[in-house]
Amino acid sequence: MDTVSASIITIGDELLIGQVIDTNSAWMAQELNKIGIPVHRRIAVGDNWDAIWNALNQESAVSNIILITGGLGPTSDDITKPLLCEYFGGKLVLHQPTLEHVTYLFEHVFKRGLPLAERNIKQAEVPDNCTILKNELGTAPGMLFEKNGCLFFSLPGVPHEMQGLMKQEVIPLLQKRFTTGCIEHRTLLTAGIGESMLADRLVDFEAALPKNISLAYLPNFGMVRLRLTMFGNHHDEVNLSINEQFAALKLLVKDVLITDKDETLEAIIGHLLTEQKKTIATAESCTGGYIAHLITSIAGSSAYYEGSVISYSYEVKEKVLQVKKEILEKYGAVSEQVVTEMVKNVLALMQTDYAIAVSGIMGPAGGTPDKPVGTVWMAVAGKERLITKKMHFRFNRQRNIQLTAANTLLLMRQLMVE
Amino acid sequence: MDTVSASIITIGDELLIGQVIDTNSAWMAQELNKIGIPVHRRIAVGDNWDAIWNALNQESAVSNIILITGGLGPTSDDITKPLLCEYFGGKLVLHQPTLEHVTYLFEHVFKRGLPLAERNIKQAEVPDNCTILKNELGTAPGMLFEKNGCLFFSLPGVPHEMQGLMKQEVIPLLQKRFTTGCIEHRTLLTAGIGESMLADRLVDFEAALPKNISLAYLPNFGMVRLRLTMFGNHHDEVNLSINEQFAALKLLVKDVLITDKDETLEAIIGHLLTEQKKTIATAESCTGGYIAHLITSIAGSSAYYEGSVISYSYEVKEKVLQVKKEILEKYGAVSEQVVTEMVKNVLALMQTDYAIAVSGIMGPAGGTPDKPVGTVWMAVAGKERLITKKMHFRFNRQRNIQLTAANTLLLMRQLMVE
Repeated sequence: MDTVSASIITIGDELLIGQVIDTNSAWMAQELNKIGIPVHRRIAVGDNWDAIWNALNQESAVSNIILITGGLGPTSDDITKPLLCEYFGGKLVLHQPTLEHVTYLFEHVFKRGLPLAERNIKQAEVPDNCTILKNELGTAPGMLFEKNGCLFFSLPGVPHEMQGLMKQEVIPLLQKRFTTGCIEHRTLLTAGIGESMLADRLVDFEAALPKNISLAYLPNFGMVRLRLTMFGNHHDEVNLSINEQFAALKLLVKDVLITDKDETLEAIIGHLLTEQKKTIATAESCTGGYIAHLITSIAGSSAYYEGSVISYSYEVKEKVLQVKKEILEKYGAVSEQVVTEMVKNVLALMQTDYAIAVSGIMGPAGGTPDKPVGTVWMAVAGKERLITKKMHFRFNRQRNIQLTAANTLLLMRQLMVE
Repeated sequence: MDTVSASIITIGDELLIGQVIDTNSAWMAQELNKIGIPVHRRIAVGDNWDAIWNALNQESAVSNIILITGGLGPTSDDITKPLLCEYFGGKLVLHQPTLEHVTYLFEHVFKRGLPLAERNIKQAEVPDNCTILKNELGTAPGMLFEKNGCLFFSLPGVPHEMQGLMKQEVIPLLQKRFTTGCIEHRTLLTAGIGESMLADRLVDFEAALPKNISLAYLPNFGMVRLRLTMFGNHHDEVNLSINEQFAALKLLVKDVLITDKDETLEAIIGHLLTEQKKTIATAESCTGGYIAHLITSIAGSSAYYEGSVISYSYEVKEKVLQVKKEILEKYGAVSEQVVTEMVKNVLALMQTDYAIAVSGIMGPAGGTPDKPVGTVWMAVAGKERLITKKMHFRFNRQRNIQLTAANTLLLMRQLMVE
């Protein structure tokens, strides 16, 4: 093992029966990448002694940094701590600073007015052959073990506790310990061109890329993200080289380029609104608040987002959004006429510069022969211009909602930049 | 290897740099569980020849069913197909039915009016030593290889294509091929009691559980889900035994039990509204449409959900929700008085039986000394009763929004069942 690389091991039966989706691994991988440490593998195992033991053996044979999350709770399905203790040949001892921290959390933060349970005191017991990493946000401390030149970090599975420990303890420690290389990514988003067409266009570009730069295609929502990744030793050289290639790539996709940053469509809309000092409102039927949720997931969105009327029923469309009854009855809720009314009226109601409106049938029920499940009408408007668009998606409810939201935001961007 | 078990291998650099969250594995694990096949491990590797090759070796040493997703796209970063071809000692040949299917998709479904590109025709080339599994929804076919009694399924990484193949091809094939055991889960949700307290209460119950039944604690959103899992050979016996234990468990947590099904809070609210033949509306400030999104993520929610006013600004609170200016100025937007007005007014505006309102500060900015980031006021109302509650969350924006939504839905449930 001549280079630095990491493996991530996540522990928990819930991962193997599919009861929860693992978001920790992706977050950890991002943070490691930022400091130039590539992740070699990610593995999920159950709350099972042999499976965890074998994973430790296997991963330490291919990586020199092992990040372990989960299995540290106060209940008996969590076996990671005793296992690590045995794996590294230590014994459990009470760690006084951790006990004081757990006591503090119970008295001043959780404030349930309850005495410390025996099992909470047990959380302050740690193997005597590890370095304790303080978990400011929870009761289970992080632990660092070393064996055969390999570092093993054990972190709790609760996302915000794991994130706190990574930022305050793990990342600084890794930066101190390793002279890492440098990994840089450049990502751009295209729309209006399929993956195959795009690939045909980029054949020569890709073939001429230096050996340490790779190109990846990430299709989603009917758009394609392109990512250049470069490994190198010197930060300045890597940046120079990848920026040069990225500039060339951007020229090649100029006509279909949406953004040259790794950002979401709601972030693009947010930046445009902030730059233009404009405001926006939404009127959602079929997406049921999902577009509003995307827009407001951006910190600081209250500066440009006024609000929304979610008109799931005819009555709300009529009464709150003032869509005329005749239009609703004549054309139906999923029609160009209705989304046009919706977008105009919400613009006036919320007195914003821009507005978005959607109405469609997301399924599984509600389709008709001329308006099958997946039919969507979208409208975006500024004070002087209005665009409508009809689309048809052919997936399940959840995916149809996501596709509608993404493509409506894309249409809004088009209105704002054209 | 005397029992049936599965490993899931997901392929893609984007998984190792944390650019995407892997939702495929969880979905696949659920489906395998339903037919009694336990998942032994999940592993993610990059678009790297050696890493994929090693993963195939390692996983086939511990599992007899290997599900592989990703790496089958039309672009050159996808190396899975040639690798599998070499791994199993075959050669690539054109598969006529797949070519016809790809041609059909381009002509009748994608309808871009473009001729089939060379790289799309290549998608119809398959190793001559595999069984082709038809991918109704996309251009890359699924493939089944067999080696040393082990089945290897290669599926595309696009979620809905993978799901279609799993349902139509993989699951029926596994059921035909293996006499699987039986896995049953029973899940319930508690609220108002911490994980440690709950564990103390269940010490004797857990100690007395039969060896083939395990208890897991899944804390989230300040609530704790409990899951019993049982492995066995005979469906009836397993059901009888786990139901008996589950009934005992339910009695022990009777006072804090929210649901005895593995369902979300929005599904609980949906069931209650359907049973009671009632309707609901929402008025959201800080959650920005997330509560509406949760409610409308349930298929059929249009039967009971009327709509929402998302009043992100003071103006919308005042103008659309008719919250009195004096109240807003005197108490501020994040106050019991304002959420009380919001919930009453949206109930009247949308003429529903129930309504929900929230107002708070989700961060990172916007906090004040007496209303720090994480402060939330929530109100739920029926026609005769109204409950308000103040909570304080101490996490990041995204988590604070999720916690607010979950706890508001919990409060709504309380109003509906009490």
